[in-house]
Amino acid sequence: MSSTLHHRILGIDPGSRTTGFGVIDTDGMRSVRIAGGCIRVGHLPWPQRLGMIFDGIAQVVVEYRPHEMAVEQLIFARDVTAALKLGQARGAVLCAGLKGDMQVHEYSPKSVKLAVVGTGGADKTQVQHMVRLLLSLAETPPEDEADALALALCHAHSMGIPARRRAAASWRDLRP
Amino acid sequence: MSSTLHHRILGIDPGSRTTGFGVIDTDGMRSVRIAGGCIRVGHLPWPQRLGMIFDGIAQVVVEYRPHEMAVEQLIFARDVTAALKLGQARGAVLCAGLKGDMQVHEYSPKSVKLAVVGTGGADKTQVQHMVRLLLSLAETPPEDEADALALALCHAHSMGIPARRRAAASWRDLRP
Repeated sequence: MSSTLHHRILGIDPGSRTTGFGVIDTDGMRSVRIAGGCIRVGHLPWPQRLGMIFDGIAQVVVEYRPHEMAVEQLIFARDVTAALKLGQARGAVLCAGLKGDMQVHEYSPKSVKLAVVGTGGADKTQVQHMVRLLLSLAETPPEDEADALALALCHAHSMGIPARRRAAASWRDLRP
Repeated sequence: MSSTLHHRILGIDPGSRTTGFGVIDTDGMRSVRIAGGCIRVGHLPWPQRLGMIFDGIAQVVVEYRPHEMAVEQLIFARDVTAALKLGQARGAVLCAGLKGDMQVHEYSPKSVKLAVVGTGGADKTQVQHMVRLLLSLAETPPEDEADALALALCHAHSMGIPARRRAAASWRDLRP
């Protein structure tokens, strides 16, 4: 199936301790998982953490050569301290993406849930479950990887809307 | 004078709209300004802003070849939204520094003011004034550049403490 899925998307869920990533191939309607995992930076000093996140994403980009990147829009954090940490991790992720010459797309958490589960108020377990179903995975992916794959799927679906409209239009054109 | 000032430090004051930078040569006690300025990213979309900050700092590193980098520790922001933005800018700055193979040092705003003005509660005008005096500048540097030069001076002073102690010890040894 993947031979017709010519568009490769890297989804990333940045975090100050764990950054999830997921790579899918898609035609905008059907998608398959190519790779996924987590970059764990634990409690290292900040400059090292960011270096590890930047290098980790850069390595994924070199290895899988995605065409585009989808990252969660940051609109909420627990408090100012958490926001400063999360912001830095996201800065490292975006820089690695831009240095890999990728176009970067941003999606709000609500639009990701809406695209994958069908409701903006879905919880993490529902996202994991739907990512498994949509990508026909044998096992439920871990939370951070599932969030990253959901971002990639959200971007794939947003690409797929015109494709689906074209398909629908062609079908209508064929009606007697 | 600068021929004996063999250590080059890059100070950076990251901001979501303006990132100040300042390069000094120092021996830990005396310092001269080599370069300084601002990277203005205005109201560009976020991925582009971070790309400009990353590229701007990378260019300064390539041009001036500093040995070390000093960046302000982020411990405060107006609110969560400001913290997310500031954190991302700082993430881009730190990644550019780490990619330039520099050791990155972090200083709290209080310790920078203490090192440059002599009091942790100094205001921005006092910092600008003292940076001008300490670097024997003909004019007062703009606020963002002054903050960046103050960071570089703070790191220079922290390096200079052992040097000054050695100098004081040598002087005592020479007393009759």
